[in-house]
Amino acid sequence: MEVSIVGAGLVGCLLACFLARRGHEVTLYERRPDPRLSGAERGRSINLAISERGIDALRRLGLAEEALSDAIPMPGRMMHAVDGTLTFQSYSSDQRHAINSISRGALNGKLLDAAEASDGVRVRFGHRLTGIGDGTLEFEGGIVEKGQQVVIGADGAYSAVRARLQQMPGTDFSQEYLDYGYKELTIPPKLGEFAFDPGALHIWPRGRSMMIALPNPDRSFTCTLFWPHDALAALDTPEKVRAHFGKEYPDAAEVMPHLASDYAGNPVGHLVTMRCDPWYRTLNGTLVGLIGDAAHAIVPFYGQGANCGFQDCVELDRCLDETGDDFARALELFQRRKADTDVIARLALDNFVEMRDKVGSRAFLAQKRVEHALERVLPGRYVSRYELVSFSTTPYAEVERRVARQRRWAGAAAAGLLIAGAVAWKRSR
Amino acid sequence: MEVSIVGAGLVGCLLACFLARRGHEVTLYERRPDPRLSGAERGRSINLAISERGIDALRRLGLAEEALSDAIPMPGRMMHAVDGTLTFQSYSSDQRHAINSISRGALNGKLLDAAEASDGVRVRFGHRLTGIGDGTLEFEGGIVEKGQQVVIGADGAYSAVRARLQQMPGTDFSQEYLDYGYKELTIPPKLGEFAFDPGALHIWPRGRSMMIALPNPDRSFTCTLFWPHDALAALDTPEKVRAHFGKEYPDAAEVMPHLASDYAGNPVGHLVTMRCDPWYRTLNGTLVGLIGDAAHAIVPFYGQGANCGFQDCVELDRCLDETGDDFARALELFQRRKADTDVIARLALDNFVEMRDKVGSRAFLAQKRVEHALERVLPGRYVSRYELVSFSTTPYAEVERRVARQRRWAGAAAAGLLIAGAVAWKRSR
Repeated sequence: MEVSIVGAGLVGCLLACFLARRGHEVTLYERRPDPRLSGAERGRSINLAISERGIDALRRLGLAEEALSDAIPMPGRMMHAVDGTLTFQSYSSDQRHAINSISRGALNGKLLDAAEASDGVRVRFGHRLTGIGDGTLEFEGGIVEKGQQVVIGADGAYSAVRARLQQMPGTDFSQEYLDYGYKELTIPPKLGEFAFDPGALHIWPRGRSMMIALPNPDRSFTCTLFWPHDALAALDTPEKVRAHFGKEYPDAAEVMPHLASDYAGNPVGHLVTMRCDPWYRTLNGTLVGLIGDAAHAIVPFYGQGANCGFQDCVELDRCLDETGDDFARALELFQRRKADTDVIARLALDNFVEMRDKVGSRAFLAQKRVEHALERVLPGRYVSRYELVSFSTTPYAEVERRVARQRRWAGAAAAGLLIAGAVAWKRSR
Repeated sequence: MEVSIVGAGLVGCLLACFLARRGHEVTLYERRPDPRLSGAERGRSINLAISERGIDALRRLGLAEEALSDAIPMPGRMMHAVDGTLTFQSYSSDQRHAINSISRGALNGKLLDAAEASDGVRVRFGHRLTGIGDGTLEFEGGIVEKGQQVVIGADGAYSAVRARLQQMPGTDFSQEYLDYGYKELTIPPKLGEFAFDPGALHIWPRGRSMMIALPNPDRSFTCTLFWPHDALAALDTPEKVRAHFGKEYPDAAEVMPHLASDYAGNPVGHLVTMRCDPWYRTLNGTLVGLIGDAAHAIVPFYGQGANCGFQDCVELDRCLDETGDDFARALELFQRRKADTDVIARLALDNFVEMRDKVGSRAFLAQKRVEHALERVLPGRYVSRYELVSFSTTPYAEVERRVARQRRWAGAAAAGLLIAGAVAWKRSR
């Protein structure tokens, strides 16, 4: 069947590969020019942390090895205190699992290559969607593509496809911005080497603000500073920038020679959670669906945006399996995934507080040690939320149910230990 | 100062009058042709229930008498049971207060007359907003109005002005639809007279569905049936319509000779709550604000949509007073009203359950009798929520605080009576 996908970003390209494998004819429309020729867009997040959900999706298409060839594994977090003290904390109890720093642009390029190499996939760059009409897709410049039966919007948080569905009565929608913005900065290589340990996601938790850094293959780090918009804007001279970083992030400032000009030149990014319900409608006879950020944009603090979008593709592929490629019924089944994406949207918001504040505290480190100890003592029985989210493909809503069950067990176990202790103490008297 | 208002509906016209009185030059842009010439739009709610907040706003401009000249007072609700039993319940304890049935079209016409008669107000019909540019308003057909410093969107639930603000990062927004739709129907005069008592808002509460009817000056009633969309759609033949109404609304069906053709011909309306935050932004140097449904569309079940929008105008007028007509500071002050409109949005949703289900029950009628008794015993001390919402101009959020305080008192008083009774009982032994 002929399917149009709007948006040739990460999720659009991956979905094209999945649909082509099922024998569908896919046209992928992208508003930008070919990023492999024109270079990456400014102001968007440069690095991603790809973990199990994303890798699993790539693996199913045989793309994992190639896509991850440049990725840098980060088996843990490295916390930077103001006094320069470093504390490493592995993400998983066995220290084997890692999340993987990867460039969005490079990954997108590889997925575009894979989509173009798939039988039945055509890619049309420079096509900016302006409307969905009577079986038609309308693009800037008066281009009209007729005979549209199935259109999937994979066009990101500011989806033009979703904007059209929002105009239909009965489509619930919300967009909620954080007061925080972000600014990307760079730590270049220091004497040709990584300025910090590349085997970690670096975090400078400062309570009200937070900076993180992810390693790149060229031995630089991409830093992202999260801070309220008014605070970001208040650093409006090179002196103020240097003074602030010297005080709050001294070890990083030392290895950021272009800090002041990067700060002045780079745009401020926004952090938004978007929800839409339902994800599919029939519009003048055309079946229109949403996937990835277009359906459920989330904040980046659990590193799950792209991973969740990739898992969406796996899930939609499964729904097509179940329905014999009946897209209407498949999109109806796929709608159930909203329970999962609602959970990760909430966890991503919650994790911001954890990252910018709690990760620096002793109580948090102690809690993580207890969790990892439980995971080792009860292998496969007790698994932390972070491990389930990042190193499994368990649906997000099931992760939350399991975490709640484990907490009840742990509470009961702790109560049991207390009672046993009390009995033993009484007997010993 | 020159101010543009987008939307010449009820709120836009009233705001134009308020601003003109302050000495501003107002241009009112309306996408439709002059409704006084072309007749009312189909499919929109035909009747409104104007109560104290709306009347107070009209009174401040000396427009109340003229605007309400055709209004029909409804001092209470008349509940229709399936067996034809009628139960009247007055809205206020002293039975003096009434809400007023009025035609939206007639009221809009009078407010347009008032706006046009005000010094400094110009009205431009047939202007459909397509964009807000660099100090410009752009309308369909290539019309561009330059030099825009202050633009107020009074263009309703599906506001084009708000759609532009939604595109700005940092504007939170949500739209939530009910599964219920509505269908307007008519009860024509019966032998030249009202088919039912015109001194009431008639309600047929049926649990899952509800019908209401408001009287018109021509002795007809406008009925509105609220029902889930799938149920509304399922009555797809004249036979099914007549059978359903005969069973559920027999006394109404008897006086609705055109029921089946009205049902087939009239569109289904949607019920949506929309929230936006903030209500004002600066866009390329133009100050852009929202008012009325454009800022906070609510469902109609408390009869407060228009009343709330009219009170918005009073409130914005007060904010301009306080700031010496500094629109930027006035809109900032006006933003505080969101606490009030959030409350009425919630109350309107809650009231749907009350109207379609509870008003028919004995427990509800008994509760209302107790409330009215308390109001008579404690005049001015105990006032019901309905009375405060409909027959006062107390800000909605203050209404809720007061209702909560009264409940605590009533609880304490009941506890006191219990204790006193227990003591008396003990002594009597």
